Amino acid sequence: MPVAPAHSLEALIQALRRLPGVGAKSAARMAYHLLQRDRDGALQLSQALVQAVDHMRHCERCHTFTEAPICAICQNPQRDATRLCVVETPADQAAMERTGAFAGLYFVLMGRISPLDGIGPHDLGLKKLLDRASDGVVQEVILATNFTAEGEMTAHVMAQALKARGLRATRLARGVPVGSELEYVDLGTIAHALAERR
Amino acid sequence: MPVAPAHSLEALIQALRRLPGVGAKSAARMAYHLLQRDRDGALQLSQALVQAVDHMRHCERCHTFTEAPICAICQNPQRDATRLCVVETPADQAAMERTGAFAGLYFVLMGRISPLDGIGPHDLGLKKLLDRASDGVVQEVILATNFTAEGEMTAHVMAQALKARGLRATRLARGVPVGSELEYVDLGTIAHALAERR
Repeated sequence: MPVAPAHSLEALIQALRRLPGVGAKSAARMAYHLLQRDRDGALQLSQALVQAVDHMRHCERCHTFTEAPICAICQNPQRDATRLCVVETPADQAAMERTGAFAGLYFVLMGRISPLDGIGPHDLGLKKLLDRASDGVVQEVILATNFTAEGEMTAHVMAQALKARGLRATRLARGVPVGSELEYVDLGTIAHALAERR
Repeated sequence: MPVAPAHSLEALIQALRRLPGVGAKSAARMAYHLLQRDRDGALQLSQALVQAVDHMRHCERCHTFTEAPICAICQNPQRDATRLCVVETPADQAAMERTGAFAGLYFVLMGRISPLDGIGPHDLGLKKLLDRASDGVVQEVILATNFTAEGEMTAHVMAQALKARGLRATRLARGVPVGSELEYVDLGTIAHALAERR
């Protein structure tokens, strides 16, 4: 006698596996949890997914996620339009905003240059960034991509292209993190902090 | 000028946080990933959630998830109805099935006794288990709850109640895991394996 599998449970587990960082066991645990203890949560998540897919688009100026054609930050006349901060993701933008230390505008790459994944400068919208930075108002482009190999490469390529257009490109300072003890900081960071001492 | 937040993105992140093991940062990463790279996946997950909530119910005999009134295992006449294996979750049941070493039927508690969470024997359906085990066919109830403090307590309580009804209750053997080196096995496990040597 063939065993009839629980099709809709299997389908849910497979769908959950498409979430980043979720493997087979986590997906099963999530599915069991939702069905056993949080069916409201499951329906709420279902709706939120459809709503977000329907309503979220990219800001025409900075490319971050927004529901309007232009995002709230780009629309805000109190932001300093002479500084443009380039970040990899909306999460990085959010981290930058939480510091409260930056009053300028953003350009969100929605990725990084990654030859292994076949993502080059043009896939990242380098041309769009150059056009955006050439609006005559922007005086400085602050490259705040991550300090990973791919983020550094991305910053390097962007800096070259911006400078070739006569635009000023700066990079977030590398150095010792606030609150850390030198003994536990990696050597590359200390070496950078020493070379860039001020 | 007030900043209009990206409502549907925020709602999606909040909904994703209801998944077990997903915090604020993971939820944001999942939401960005779905919107940026996998909108099909988002819609598929949305549908799978609704389908599963609509169709999955509990088996009337063993309480596991199923789309039919009685699950495929309980319906299978080739399973040995004299042995009933009690597990905490469908995931544990699946692990037991993967061994291929058990041909009996199951009773899935869908939880464990957990005084801290206010889950007592009656919330777990102890009465339902006793009725199920008293069908005149079941000769042995194998308690295969987890070997955690809560799982052990659950097994203990079930064993007492089953024995009070004159039913035979056994427990999976505790001992040294297959393939492990004694040097790296915890002392409690070795002590148990020694006491229960055969």
